[in-house]
Amino acid sequence: MALRLSTLFLRTLRDNPADAEVASHQLLMRAGYIRRAAPGIYTWLPMGLKVLAKVEAIVREEMNAIGGQEVSFPALLPREPYEATGRWEEYGEGLFRLQDRKDADYLLAPTHEEMFTLLVKDLYNSYKDLPVYLYQIQQKYRDEARPRAGLLRGREFVMKDSYSFTIDDEGLEEAYQKHRAAYLKIFERLGLEVVPVAATAGAMGGSTSEEFLHPTPIGEDTFVRSAGGYAANVEAVSTVVPEEIPYDDAASFQVRHTPNTPTIATLVDAANEIAPREDGQWTAADTLKNVALTIVHPSGARQVVIVGVPGDRGVDLKRVQANIGLLMEISGEVSVEQASDEDLRSHPLLVKGYMGPGLGLDHQVLGSEGATGLTYLVDPRVVSGTTWITGANVRGQHVFGLVAGRDFTWDGTIEACEVREGDEAPDGSGPLQTARGIELGHIFQLGRKYAEALHLRVLDANGKQATVTMGSYGIGVTRAVAAIAEHYHDDQGLIWPRSVAPADVHVLVTGKGDELIEGAEKIVADLESRGVEVLYDDRPKVSAGVKFGDAELIGIPTVVVVGRGFADGQIEVKDRATGERENVAVADVVDHVAGIVRG
Amino acid sequence: MALRLSTLFLRTLRDNPADAEVASHQLLMRAGYIRRAAPGIYTWLPMGLKVLAKVEAIVREEMNAIGGQEVSFPALLPREPYEATGRWEEYGEGLFRLQDRKDADYLLAPTHEEMFTLLVKDLYNSYKDLPVYLYQIQQKYRDEARPRAGLLRGREFVMKDSYSFTIDDEGLEEAYQKHRAAYLKIFERLGLEVVPVAATAGAMGGSTSEEFLHPTPIGEDTFVRSAGGYAANVEAVSTVVPEEIPYDDAASFQVRHTPNTPTIATLVDAANEIAPREDGQWTAADTLKNVALTIVHPSGARQVVIVGVPGDRGVDLKRVQANIGLLMEISGEVSVEQASDEDLRSHPLLVKGYMGPGLGLDHQVLGSEGATGLTYLVDPRVVSGTTWITGANVRGQHVFGLVAGRDFTWDGTIEACEVREGDEAPDGSGPLQTARGIELGHIFQLGRKYAEALHLRVLDANGKQATVTMGSYGIGVTRAVAAIAEHYHDDQGLIWPRSVAPADVHVLVTGKGDELIEGAEKIVADLESRGVEVLYDDRPKVSAGVKFGDAELIGIPTVVVVGRGFADGQIEVKDRATGERENVAVADVVDHVAGIVRG
Repeated sequence: MALRLSTLFLRTLRDNPADAEVASHQLLMRAGYIRRAAPGIYTWLPMGLKVLAKVEAIVREEMNAIGGQEVSFPALLPREPYEATGRWEEYGEGLFRLQDRKDADYLLAPTHEEMFTLLVKDLYNSYKDLPVYLYQIQQKYRDEARPRAGLLRGREFVMKDSYSFTIDDEGLEEAYQKHRAAYLKIFERLGLEVVPVAATAGAMGGSTSEEFLHPTPIGEDTFVRSAGGYAANVEAVSTVVPEEIPYDDAASFQVRHTPNTPTIATLVDAANEIAPREDGQWTAADTLKNVALTIVHPSGARQVVIVGVPGDRGVDLKRVQANIGLLMEISGEVSVEQASDEDLRSHPLLVKGYMGPGLGLDHQVLGSEGATGLTYLVDPRVVSGTTWITGANVRGQHVFGLVAGRDFTWDGTIEACEVREGDEAPDGSGPLQTARGIELGHIFQLGRKYAEALHLRVLDANGKQATVTMGSYGIGVTRAVAAIAEHYHDDQGLIWPRSVAPADVHVLVTGKGDELIEGAEKIVADLESRGVEVLYDDRPKVSAGVKFGDAELIGIPTVVVVGRGFADGQIEVKDRATGERENVAVADVVDHVAGIVRG
Repeated sequence: MALRLSTLFLRTLRDNPADAEVASHQLLMRAGYIRRAAPGIYTWLPMGLKVLAKVEAIVREEMNAIGGQEVSFPALLPREPYEATGRWEEYGEGLFRLQDRKDADYLLAPTHEEMFTLLVKDLYNSYKDLPVYLYQIQQKYRDEARPRAGLLRGREFVMKDSYSFTIDDEGLEEAYQKHRAAYLKIFERLGLEVVPVAATAGAMGGSTSEEFLHPTPIGEDTFVRSAGGYAANVEAVSTVVPEEIPYDDAASFQVRHTPNTPTIATLVDAANEIAPREDGQWTAADTLKNVALTIVHPSGARQVVIVGVPGDRGVDLKRVQANIGLLMEISGEVSVEQASDEDLRSHPLLVKGYMGPGLGLDHQVLGSEGATGLTYLVDPRVVSGTTWITGANVRGQHVFGLVAGRDFTWDGTIEACEVREGDEAPDGSGPLQTARGIELGHIFQLGRKYAEALHLRVLDANGKQATVTMGSYGIGVTRAVAAIAEHYHDDQGLIWPRSVAPADVHVLVTGKGDELIEGAEKIVADLESRGVEVLYDDRPKVSAGVKFGDAELIGIPTVVVVGRGFADGQIEVKDRATGERENVAVADVVDHVAGIVRG
């Protein structure tokens, strides 16, 4: 049955809602697809639900096509399995937690790794049962600190999450590649360009992981790509590591007075004045900047670490944050911030503005072996034999010619520096370009983390217990709806791709008279009998102008106007995307439109 | 694509799970439809999800047919709207409450009256916009004290809830009747007998309300019906009220010593001895039993009230509980229990075992005008002019010939007595029979309670603000799945009605040889090309006996066995419900089975 605007529960809004910043949010609200129920929590109105259902159907088809089997887990889950894997704590404030009437702890699931693991453990016990790919399309919950941009970052949202269970890494690789291919197909069918980028695994654990980013200036994720095909989330970009340099012939370091050099720029100026370089000028890249950062552990504990980076680069806290957990073996999500004055107060050996790994004397200050005992990490560019101008840990003094590996050591290497446009791609495929994107999917090779924590083992071909290997794969379904709306719109409104449009055709009747109305009704009925989904603007007292405006706003791909030309046997057929109009004879219009819809 | 048991994520269980009490729960678990995730919280496995989807589709079709428009609200909702209607408190422990990271209060919605009211308020402003019927099919949450019987009483469950918005009571009546008719149709299509019974509105508020009960001995609800068509939830049965009796000529009451008469039986014996009745014997029906009950208010406050009922009937606490809130104007769900000794300690004028409305002297003890000030309620059989033997509020004394309306008054009349088989139906349609049932649906004429609390007003035909009239209508979708499983099974397993079966046909291949397998594969492919949904047991190393057993357990309506007879060109087609078997020629089997499926 046609959706009739005279009775459809839909009111278009003339103005943008005050709290809607991005176009998709504004237009989905204005065109009557969604309403806000609470911050980051939305209600789907009839038209929105139709789009959502079409997106879900496409996801479902492609998941079934790779052998995925659909199940449905509760959203309200007991604490215990999440406790066993550590995620109950690790998720921190991002997890909605609650208690039932018996004071038992529950959560609203952000993802379901634990439950799928337990389900497979419950039903399966042999390698012959594997592989199995399971998925669900279901409400997820995350208590985002800053829900924003409507459906783009919500607190209750629909996600397709799937999980692969295989007997070995080879099986995992196959499951991963199948999901990867299915994801590319899904996004193609949704009309969304995506770039699969290398990513860090974060709290999820596991090794290989890729995000499917939809490039758009309003995206929250920054990624880089090269002309040669490299692409990575900024957090996951690895630096091209220089070769080590022999330092047998290197001169000894010298401590020099460098008063009033609180910044790298002032230090470089001073260096060029007091100790000019033999072969040119000192630049910021010759200095080693030591930055005090505070790691906030999942428990809330604050740990100061020092990171040494070339002075010509800033520290990218998000990159440090993404990589430091694995490096320092902290389980759970940490946050990283600049160390505060209070954080530093308990480390008096650190001299602000003049920190350095060596004291300019015969012992080291930084590093777990140094006088402060503070963990000292360096950028990958700091390799053995590189020579640096850096702080002497004495106010107004720097040390020149400090040689890495000879004069100081470090506890580990971390990707800490900002990535810049023009940096070389790590695979040598050319200089990197920066872009922004929306994360629409994320696939993980989890390995055995969850299976080990929850003891998911099966008998292998030799009759021995083997831990199962897992992958997990997510698509943000509601977020995809927003991304489509964001990409397909103009100043007048939405322009749905045919694959997800809430209707195929929008029929408007503009004008009066029984004959005209009957003509429109007949076209609507005939289109429907051909399987065409129709949104029919039959509102009797609404002006043609308002109807045209609403059609632009609502964004059905094909608009059929039964109006002025009808008396002369003509119907106007308009393409919403291109704006092209053509007049079609009344007798031909149903065939013509059905042909357009079939594509 | 056929579901293949060789890869389907399904393991049948030989034994009933320890915690499963009722057949539906046992069989849905054993046949691999659901698994338990937490008490009252279930996971849907692939086959279960198919049944659920078919039930949902039937509900959706019938809701669309009466003009319902589907939307989808979040499950996680802010406190404020529920605060405004009082339900935040009233739901008591049955509501899952939680806080977000900013300590804002949220709940997991048990139903959505508030949100729908606000949504209509948000979009509509004129009587011309009405009526509108909105619905959703969605997860609901209730923290049941005793989740039981699998899907029958869960804590997370799927519900279809709809809401009608109309300008007046006439519109509400129409919406209510349309929903009522749609519900009858839905349950018919699901193969579920239902009895619509008069019900009390409970915490939902409003006036008229009916439950759709599916009669079954395992049901939690007791209801009564008469041969003449009356049916009501026990809580909602109204007593046939006797006529008032003139008491001008009645004798005065007399106080008598009645030591050792703590029970009605001993009192009746004593009465017949010390003051024999002129026209026969005193019976328990001549005594007025006064029972002290405690109302536990939503706030937790305990209030003692006294209820007077004929001595031949017990007090039904559930009936009192269902009716006392409205009578005493308490908003929210109260619970009612026998008053404890501690509750009674602060009311020394009450003499346990000898309580009565008059003191046997010249003033009254009970009732808001009485010496105790306690609210005094009576059964509807206590009408003006009826004469009673009752307590004298003095240990060892009763009063005889106490006339209602002359010697004592009361604050209100309440349906407090147990309903018995054989009681007259209130509409005179014959004696009542008792039965048990599962509540599958509940429809409410809410009236203006929610619209008033949340200020949902529209302009009426005279341009004045008018409060909108609402109805709300629920179907327990997951509960319906359980009810179907409960009704349609035998000792061997489930027997799905065709309308909701997870597949149309279960094809088994029993035996070996390429020809046999190829033959079965061809039948499966041909059936599918005819639009028949096939579950195909292609497991190579499973015995025929196990396959037959699983087919019985899983319960697909038609079973096709490609086995022994195949070499002779014969296929066995079996009806799961009747057990009837027939042999069909290989060449005809697809036509034959497709014919059965089409019905």
